[in-house]
Amino acid sequence: MKHIKVNLGKHSYPVFIGSGVIQSLGGLVEKYLPGYDTAYIVTNAYLHKKYCPAVINTLRRAGICAKVRLIPDSEKAKSLAIAGSLLEDIASFSRSRRVFIVAFGGGVVGDLAGFVASVFRRGIPYIQIPTTLLAQVDSSIGGKTAVDLKQGKNLVGAFYQPKLVVSDIDFLKSLTARQVKSGLAEVIKYGLIKDRRLFSYLERNFRAGLSLKAKAVGFIVGRASAIKAEIVSRDEREEKGLRTILNFGHTIGHAIEAAGKYGLYNHGEAIALGMLVCADISLGLKLITRKDFLRIENLFRKVSLPTKIKNLRLNDIISAHYHDKKFVGAKNRFVLLEGIGIAKVQENIPAGIIIKAVQKRLLLSRAGR
Amino acid sequence: MKHIKVNLGKHSYPVFIGSGVIQSLGGLVEKYLPGYDTAYIVTNAYLHKKYCPAVINTLRRAGICAKVRLIPDSEKAKSLAIAGSLLEDIASFSRSRRVFIVAFGGGVVGDLAGFVASVFRRGIPYIQIPTTLLAQVDSSIGGKTAVDLKQGKNLVGAFYQPKLVVSDIDFLKSLTARQVKSGLAEVIKYGLIKDRRLFSYLERNFRAGLSLKAKAVGFIVGRASAIKAEIVSRDEREEKGLRTILNFGHTIGHAIEAAGKYGLYNHGEAIALGMLVCADISLGLKLITRKDFLRIENLFRKVSLPTKIKNLRLNDIISAHYHDKKFVGAKNRFVLLEGIGIAKVQENIPAGIIIKAVQKRLLLSRAGR
Repeated sequence: MKHIKVNLGKHSYPVFIGSGVIQSLGGLVEKYLPGYDTAYIVTNAYLHKKYCPAVINTLRRAGICAKVRLIPDSEKAKSLAIAGSLLEDIASFSRSRRVFIVAFGGGVVGDLAGFVASVFRRGIPYIQIPTTLLAQVDSSIGGKTAVDLKQGKNLVGAFYQPKLVVSDIDFLKSLTARQVKSGLAEVIKYGLIKDRRLFSYLERNFRAGLSLKAKAVGFIVGRASAIKAEIVSRDEREEKGLRTILNFGHTIGHAIEAAGKYGLYNHGEAIALGMLVCADISLGLKLITRKDFLRIENLFRKVSLPTKIKNLRLNDIISAHYHDKKFVGAKNRFVLLEGIGIAKVQENIPAGIIIKAVQKRLLLSRAGR
Repeated sequence: MKHIKVNLGKHSYPVFIGSGVIQSLGGLVEKYLPGYDTAYIVTNAYLHKKYCPAVINTLRRAGICAKVRLIPDSEKAKSLAIAGSLLEDIASFSRSRRVFIVAFGGGVVGDLAGFVASVFRRGIPYIQIPTTLLAQVDSSIGGKTAVDLKQGKNLVGAFYQPKLVVSDIDFLKSLTARQVKSGLAEVIKYGLIKDRRLFSYLERNFRAGLSLKAKAVGFIVGRASAIKAEIVSRDEREEKGLRTILNFGHTIGHAIEAAGKYGLYNHGEAIALGMLVCADISLGLKLITRKDFLRIENLFRKVSLPTKIKNLRLNDIISAHYHDKKFVGAKNRFVLLEGIGIAKVQENIPAGIIIKAVQKRLLLSRAGR
């Protein structure tokens, strides 16, 4: 059982990673949330049926009773209405109990349940049990909680850290191949912005990653979580600009996701394309060599993440983005690369360079490419 | 223009107090929120009509444009539904703007608007412009924001500090005599828990306070704000127990408020009765002298705050309280007095002592008193 610490003074917390770590949940809660006697587990129907009996059992052995609340398994669950319904539910039974929230699922469950924990009685403890690769290496660590408004995603939320993260890699066996690849896109991101050795490891071991071999996945989740934990430790609330590099590939990735109405590309696929665009921009600005660029493009190919944008046009992508003005405007800000493993934040990239890099990825660009 | 500072490290902020300080609002915003260009003013219809043109003018002179949002003038406005509607409203127009929120009104407006500010985009700045005595001396300082659930008041919220508080005592002229007395109850509380000299001042100058003489009100609001600021500075998130003394009279006060269904007694009247009950308990435990007790009871009489509980019975009060179990249970916790100006937190007060002290205040107790 690997153990990483997110260092945030009195808001510090551990991340436990490994195969079967969920069996230790009861003991971990006893240690990290002493005195709390009731778990409010937020999860979806699939996870509930498949895993909740085991989760509830380990809690019960530690003297903790559990109440399960099912939410829809889609981004639609991240609404103020559903958050409100959870809050009323907790208020109805929690009067004389010491309740904590368990976010048991992927990013949607974590964002929603974390937000509810942040505002109920001005903050009650919560723990993250991420069940997707994406959530294990990214959203479960760092305390960014949120729900969506119809005007945009994640517009309502809080920075609110969990007390404990338990990443059991056995849960990943429930994922589809497409979900695994989507998670690997975020892992490649950590290699690109911060860890040349992780990148090389992925080049050599991508097959073991894709087929969820325990040793490879344990290493990958551990290393990615450690990088995320380190960056968050130094910039909890995104105030110092250090957390910015975590957005590598995300500005354009979000635009691609939105342009496809969140159906054409999933998050990992869209940010893979976004990272390739930024790698192209970095190449165009001579920040990285052609050799490094080709290694990057190659790794995405090996993992069978998309390297071309299908069925979208340039204008779809630019106009879909919530912050389209920032995207190609005078004061944009992009995370670029100065080499594999070294990120660089650069402002005021000329619109022409960005557009050219996006066009290069389009399977049917206006130039007929 | 008095100037008090709430010392909370990088979350520190000033409180400006005086007659006509609202005229300086534009300049204060320029200084304390540099770069913000749009004010989202949350207020009610009465204040909007009477004062908003002046407020908007001072902002405009500083180059800040304003959007006004009216909310109902009652506790009902503190709902998740209204908070959600404000959030969508701000999201609709704020894309390319640097927006801050202005809570312009009493405690309801401050609690609601502060909560909205705390969660929009994980926190945008807000300023408090309290217009009631209660809000000026209490709720506008300290960053407790909240909305209600049907299960209870203030169940959803955040600790989220404003960037600036502007307490213009001229606004108090709009208050009814009953509202002024309600605010004075909180001021008496500060005297009782922390400042014997403030208490003596009120004994001598209560008439000037009641008739809102500028000199007396300026002194009272300044002194009360300074005490609140000092306590908050030492215990921002109510974690060290220091903020607990601010609840003097509130446990029983809230029970009386709730038993009267928030219509029989307003907040100040209810906590005045709660403070008298706690003074009685303190006398019963020989923590204060009978002379001090009589001075306390006398001051409430002078200000014409209630000293007897009318139209409620003991069981109404005990069962109405959300935390009734804590109220008379084994592990209750009360703020008592060890003298005028000295608070003491004491646990496990025998139920009989509490009940006797409440009964003494009942105009029609079961004993026929």
